Amino acid sequence: MTELSTPTTAPEDVRRVACVGAGVIGGGWVAHFLARGYDVTAWDPAPDAEARLRRLVDAAWPALEHLGLAAGASADRLTVTATLEEAVAEAQFVQESAPEKLDLKRELLAKLDAATPAGVVVASSTSGYPMTDMQTEAVTPGRLVVGHPFNPPYLIPLVEVVGGGRTDPEAVRWAARFYEVAGKSVITMDREVPGFIANRLQEALWREALHMVANGEATVREIDLSITEGPGLRWAIMGPMLTFALAGGEGGMAHMLDHFGPSLKSPWTRLEAPELDRALYDAVVAGCAEAADGRSIADLVAERDQGVIDVLRATGRLPRAGGA
Amino acid sequence: MTELSTPTTAPEDVRRVACVGAGVIGGGWVAHFLARGYDVTAWDPAPDAEARLRRLVDAAWPALEHLGLAAGASADRLTVTATLEEAVAEAQFVQESAPEKLDLKRELLAKLDAATPAGVVVASSTSGYPMTDMQTEAVTPGRLVVGHPFNPPYLIPLVEVVGGGRTDPEAVRWAARFYEVAGKSVITMDREVPGFIANRLQEALWREALHMVANGEATVREIDLSITEGPGLRWAIMGPMLTFALAGGEGGMAHMLDHFGPSLKSPWTRLEAPELDRALYDAVVAGCAEAADGRSIADLVAERDQGVIDVLRATGRLPRAGGA
Repeated sequence: MTELSTPTTAPEDVRRVACVGAGVIGGGWVAHFLARGYDVTAWDPAPDAEARLRRLVDAAWPALEHLGLAAGASADRLTVTATLEEAVAEAQFVQESAPEKLDLKRELLAKLDAATPAGVVVASSTSGYPMTDMQTEAVTPGRLVVGHPFNPPYLIPLVEVVGGGRTDPEAVRWAARFYEVAGKSVITMDREVPGFIANRLQEALWREALHMVANGEATVREIDLSITEGPGLRWAIMGPMLTFALAGGEGGMAHMLDHFGPSLKSPWTRLEAPELDRALYDAVVAGCAEAADGRSIADLVAERDQGVIDVLRATGRLPRAGGA
Repeated sequence: MTELSTPTTAPEDVRRVACVGAGVIGGGWVAHFLARGYDVTAWDPAPDAEARLRRLVDAAWPALEHLGLAAGASADRLTVTATLEEAVAEAQFVQESAPEKLDLKRELLAKLDAATPAGVVVASSTSGYPMTDMQTEAVTPGRLVVGHPFNPPYLIPLVEVVGGGRTDPEAVRWAARFYEVAGKSVITMDREVPGFIANRLQEALWREALHMVANGEATVREIDLSITEGPGLRWAIMGPMLTFALAGGEGGMAHMLDHFGPSLKSPWTRLEAPELDRALYDAVVAGCAEAADGRSIADLVAERDQGVIDVLRATGRLPRAGGA
C-alpha cells in the first residue's frame, strides 16, 4: 500500500477524472465532473453507451449552466474511450459505476487497479457492497474506496466514503477531501455497513412502501403524495432525528421519546423496533443536542418553518387560497 | 348516523372551528385555521396551555403573514375557553389533538361527541390509532373521523383522512372536502391501516435510524445529514416510488426492479422484504406509469432536476464553488 503514502496528486490539484461505467449514475458523475471543470474520460462496454452518455450530459447541461459552471467547464472536455485502459491511463482519480453485481465489481476493480497509474485512488459508486468484498482480486487494494453518490450525482450533494479491510486509511482521507473539493457533501464512515447510511434509511422506507402496495393498503401515487406533501418537505431541510425532536415541543427529543417511545412498540411498520433502552435513549437525546449545536428548540422551529416555506415557495406549492 | 345525512353546514361555509388539545399539533392546527380566516375556539386542560398556545401562534404568525393570510384572518380571532363544552358549543368542525393514549382518546371523543352540535364532524389528529378503536364509547360515532396532519400543520399540507367501522362515509367525504377548502392536501384512505401511510413510511426509516444509533453505525448528525444532503432533497419534490423509477434510467421502474430487485433480498435494513412476485412487480410498474400520467422518463428527470435546483437555491445550498 506504499503507493498512497506518496500520492502523485493532491486532491486540490486533480484535473483529469476517469468515469468507468456510464449509465444513469456513471453518466451523472460525468456531468458533475465536467460542470466542475475537470477533463473527463469515460468508458462503458455497452454498444450505444457514448450516444446515451452524451444525451444525458446534454440534458443536464442547461441546468448545470444555470447553477453556475466552474471556470473553463465544458461538455467538450469529455472523451469517450474505446477501452478501459485508455480511460484510466492518465487519470488522477477514477470513479467506477458499473452495474450492481458483486462478481462484476470484483473483476472490474481488479482490472482498474491493474490499468490505473500508481498512487491514484479508485472509488466505487456501489450502492451497498462493502469494499472488503469487492477488493479481493486487486493487486493494490489499498487505493480502493467506496464513494457512494445519490441520483443524480450532478445535483444531490451527498457522497458516502468508506474503505474496506485492505484499504489504506490515507486513500479514504484523500477521497473525502477530493469529493469536497469537487463540490460534494461527504460523510466518511469508520466502518463498513451494507448499504451505508442513507440507503439503509431509504431502503427501509421503500420496503414498507412495497408491503403497502403488495397488500393493497396504498397506491403508488398515494405513497408518493404522502411523502412530497408530508415528511418529504421537512426532510429537504431537516433530517428525521431533529424533525422528530421538534415533535416533542419545548421538551425536544427527550420529551418526544417519553411521549412516543411506547409507540415504538406499535406495529406501524413491518420493521422490528429496537429496544429503547437507557443507552439508546441517551444516545439519541445527546445526539440531537449535539446536532442542535446551541440552537434552542424555538430556533430550530423557526429555521424549519423558514426552510419549509422556502421549499414550498420554490416549488410552487404555497398553500392553496381558500378558507373562510 | 342520520345526523350526517343532513349536515348543518357545507364544507365551504364553515366559519367556526374548535381545536381541542393545544400542544404542538393542536396549536399548529389553531395557527393554520386562524391564518385561513376561521374563528377558532381552543381548549386544553394544561394549566399553562393558553400562554403556550399564544406563544406558538405568535411565533408562527410572521411566517403565515409572509405566506399570505386569508381575507380577515387574525390571531385575535382565537378564543381560549375554560371548558371543553364552551369550545365546541358553536363549532362547525372540531379537531381533536390530545396526547396519543388510546383510553384518553376514547373518553375524550365520547365527551366531544356529547357536547358538539348534531351534524358537526369531529376529526382526530391521532398519529396511528384506527378510529374503530377510538369511537367505541361515542353515542353518535358516525361523525367521528381521523384527520391526521403533519408537524407543523400550518405549513405541511398533508392530511390523511379515514373513517372507522362505525363512521358514516358521508362524514369522511365531508371532512376531506373541508380540509381541501381549508388549504390542505388530502389523501382519503378506504381502509384503516395503523399509522396510515406516511407515518408507516417515516416510522420504518426512524426505526432503522434508531438501530444504527443503537449499534454505533451512525451518529444522529450523520443520519440527518445523509437525508438532508441526499434523498431528502428529492423527496421534497418527488416521492420514493417515482424517484426509484428514475434510477432505472430510460427503462424506468421496470428496469429498476429488474436491476435492483435481487438487492431487495440484501439485508440493508432490519425490515423484512416483501416477496417481489409478479403481482407486486406489476402493481409497482403500473402504479408508476399511472403516477407519471403521460410524462416520459426524460420529462420526469427534467422536472426532478428543476425541482432539486429550486430546493437547493431556496435553501441556500447551491453546490459549493470549487473544482478544477
